[in-house]
This record gives sequence, C-alpha cells and structure tokens, in this order.
Amino acid sequence: MLWLDGRLLPAAEAGIATNDRGFTLGDGIFETIKARNGRPLRWARHLARLEAGAATLGIPVGWPGDTLRAAMEAVLAANGLDAAVLRLTLSRGPGERGLLPPDRATPTLLIAANPLPPPAKPARAVIAETVRRNAHSPLARIKSLSYLDSVLARMEAARRGADDALLLNGAGRLTEATAANLFLAIADRLHTPPVAEGALPGTMRAELLELAPVEERPIDAAELEKASELFLSSSLGLRPVASVEGRAIGTGEPGPAFRRLQAEIEERERRG
Amino acid sequence: MLWLDGRLLPAAEAGIATNDRGFTLGDGIFETIKARNGRPLRWARHLARLEAGAATLGIPVGWPGDTLRAAMEAVLAANGLDAAVLRLTLSRGPGERGLLPPDRATPTLLIAANPLPPPAKPARAVIAETVRRNAHSPLARIKSLSYLDSVLARMEAARRGADDALLLNGAGRLTEATAANLFLAIADRLHTPPVAEGALPGTMRAELLELAPVEERPIDAAELEKASELFLSSSLGLRPVASVEGRAIGTGEPGPAFRRLQAEIEERERRG
Repeated sequence: MLWLDGRLLPAAEAGIATNDRGFTLGDGIFETIKARNGRPLRWARHLARLEAGAATLGIPVGWPGDTLRAAMEAVLAANGLDAAVLRLTLSRGPGERGLLPPDRATPTLLIAANPLPPPAKPARAVIAETVRRNAHSPLARIKSLSYLDSVLARMEAARRGADDALLLNGAGRLTEATAANLFLAIADRLHTPPVAEGALPGTMRAELLELAPVEERPIDAAELEKASELFLSSSLGLRPVASVEGRAIGTGEPGPAFRRLQAEIEERERRG
Repeated sequence: MLWLDGRLLPAAEAGIATNDRGFTLGDGIFETIKARNGRPLRWARHLARLEAGAATLGIPVGWPGDTLRAAMEAVLAANGLDAAVLRLTLSRGPGERGLLPPDRATPTLLIAANPLPPPAKPARAVIAETVRRNAHSPLARIKSLSYLDSVLARMEAARRGADDALLLNGAGRLTEATAANLFLAIADRLHTPPVAEGALPGTMRAELLELAPVEERPIDAAELEKASELFLSSSLGLRPVASVEGRAIGTGEPGPAFRRLQAEIEERERRG
C-alpha cells in the first residue's frame, strides 16, 4: 500500500503520469526515513530538509507536516510494518515539453514503506573513479531525484567487489559515500567534510554534530591513511567502514567513536 | 497518444510504476528528436547516442532501432503530427529500494510527440551563477533523466529575464547551454567546447562538425568578448544568441556562419 497525493492505495493501482517531471527530468526531491514502532523517526529534521529542498527547487510541498506524518503512519499500518524504511518522494508533477516548469505546478507526493533491513556489516569501500561529486551545484545540498551520479558510483563499487564508494569532489577531496555521510577519527578527534565541499546535509549527520565534537573541514583523500576509524551515517543508522581500496582502516573492526555514537543513537531511537 | 513498452495508447491511460527508477532516481536517458513529414530526422545519430547512453548505464535498450523508428512514426500518425518533436525516454524500469539496479532490469520505454515549436528568435543568454556543469561525471556525456542541473539553470535564466543560460564547468570554462551546444565565431573561425570539458555530444553538434571546419577546444568564458557570433545547436535546430549578460554578441543579429549552416541544415532536412 502507498500514499499518493492524498490517497492510500494498493501499489498496483498507483501510477505516475508519463509527463511527470520527476520521471522526465529528475525534477524533485526525496527523503528516506527510518521508522520504529510504526512511527517515523527524526521527522522534524526530515521535514525541515524536505522544505529546504523544495524551496531550492521552487516546488510547493503542498501538505502540512502533520498530514505527511499521519500519512506515513497510515502507510506503515496498512503494510503491517513496525520497523521500516519510509521513502517520501516529492516531484514537481506533470509538465509540458521543455525545461521551464509550469507556472502553477501540481506536485506529486508519494509515500512508500519497506521493511527495515538488518544492520549492515562493516563496509568495504572504494573511491569512485567514474564520477566525482559536483560541489558547484545546489543539487549537492539537496536529496534530489537526479540521483544517477550516486547510482553509477554504487554500481562501480559493486563491479569492484565493494559495498560502497566514497565520492571525491572536483578538487579531489572527500565528500560522502553514495547515500551516506562520512566521519573519520583522526588522532582521537572526529572529522567530517563540510556541506560546501559537496557533502549532503544529512539528518543523521546533523544529529551526530550535536552528539559529539566534530570538526567540519575539507578532507583530502590521502588523510584516510591517518584515520583510525571511518564510518558512514545515514537516516538508517551508522555503518563502520572496514577498508578503503583494500586497505584496512584502523583495526578493520568497529572503533570506539563508532560504538559510542551507535549506542547513543540507539538509545535516542528507543526513547522515540 | 503515446507508445509505452510496445503499446500505442492514450496518454490518460498510460502510467509509470511508482517504483520506476526513472522516477525515483533519475535512472535513465532520453532523446529529443525532430520530425518532418511524419518521420524522425537524424535517427541513426539519435539511435547511436541512445545506445551509447544505455551502455554507459548498463540498461538494455530492449527494442531494435527499426522497431523504435516504426513506433515513432506510429505516434506521429496517431497524433496527426507531421512536423513534431519526439521524445524517447528509456528508464531502467521498476526497482526495489536502494541504489543498486535489479540483476535483471525490465526497462521502461516511452515515446511521446508534440507539435514542432516555431523557430525561436535570437536568444538573450546569461551565464548560470547557481550551477556549474560537472565534467567529472559520465552524465555530462549522456542525455540522462537526472537533468535537474539544467532545469535549475534555465529557471535562473528566466528569473534574470533571459531565454537561456550558458553553463561553465568547474574550471570556469564554457560547456553548453541548458539543452543545446555552443558555437562561437572568433576571427572568422568556428569554435566549440570539447566533450571532455562537459559538453554533451549533441546530434546536431556532430552534424555541424561534419559540415564546417570547427575547432574543438577549451573556451574560457572571457572569450565571449572576442566572438563575432554565438549560436546554439540542438536536435531542433540552430538558434543565434543576441547577447550574453546584456552585452551584444557581434551586431546582435544572426551572423554569416549561423545563416550558412542554418541553410545547409534546412536543405538536409528537406532532403530527409
């Protein structure tokens, strides 16, 4: 069961118009939201980012946050899901031929839910060779439907026998993984690339910045050699990186910073 | 009337699955094809680029070129269109949650047609400030559904009272307009940015490179001041640029290189 533009309906009955600009031009945004106990987690953060992304694109969200929250809970209930991954997709909706949006857009808003995947084991990562992240685009700072660069990087990782790829920006510095932010422990201090370098302002990233002292600064790929820990953060949680390009990070095992933050996140999620 | 996955059907009856990766991740490609006399023009070039883009993404096209050509002609006939713009959209098709494509994709192929717009008057252009083109991505070299950077640049142009925007790459050099390649006449010679700089390998661009001596070379934005002509090329045709950032290019009128190539293109299209 899905929620599409105000209606809860079976997936088989739901369809997107062939001229929806989400389909024809990647013109829209999305949020991936973890749910526990049938309720979305960190909704205030997700809603704020959704609204910021919509404002960047000039797309009206069209629905109050409370309505969207109720819609997500309805989707979870209708699918009998307790722990889940929600995806909220907002596209600009149907449009005529051409790049300019219609004067008055009628956005498409879709909410779908899937069972929460089990925690992922430590990742083997590579550094993407086929694609770099464009820090010179507003899209680096929103979760847009034009997500194909990250898809290509993830496909490259799989081709090279890895679980994920780290993306560099045009200057050769670290930005993020294909769908997660990066945190490095260097000399007992946490570091993460700044949004200005091409890192998405992740909701979990924002939470970690509140939970621990983290230095946001440009990080050269060569600094991976100095890192005692490297982990990924996404709305679904934290994931340690065991190796990059076949080279172990630290001991290759989840490190103390990861374990401490993981426990704090878990505790926060349990409190709801 | 549309052609969708082998069937000709009314647009109102056609729909894209809500989990189509074209919609959720901009995972696919498209071609914009001019038609005259109910037939697609430059189909061999378009098909070659479609196949190259599909290969870059690892999406099987799934239909032979002759079938697609017949499908386009059927769409034109069904809509009573003689001179038209066809759009062929190929997405990777439905997929489960996550970035990795399914092992066996079932791509979506959509063909739509619209009346051919009248020739556009000389364009007032700006240089996009909000976004630069990412020469470090394979997407710069294919016409992907992740097209939102160009949408944002076109919206910026409209906001600034212009018809189109020229996009720079990360190094500040010219690449293309939002949906067209660039040609500059400097000292009686034509120049165009190379694909390696972030210019899409346009079908009309390829035809112009056959019709006239053109130097493909990195072009700094400052060289616009030296240009006696600037024009855009797309599958729909050529369009002169009258001004960039309010500054006239040459006389501001269509120049001799534009007029000669325009006439040759017109003649070729008439011959079919």
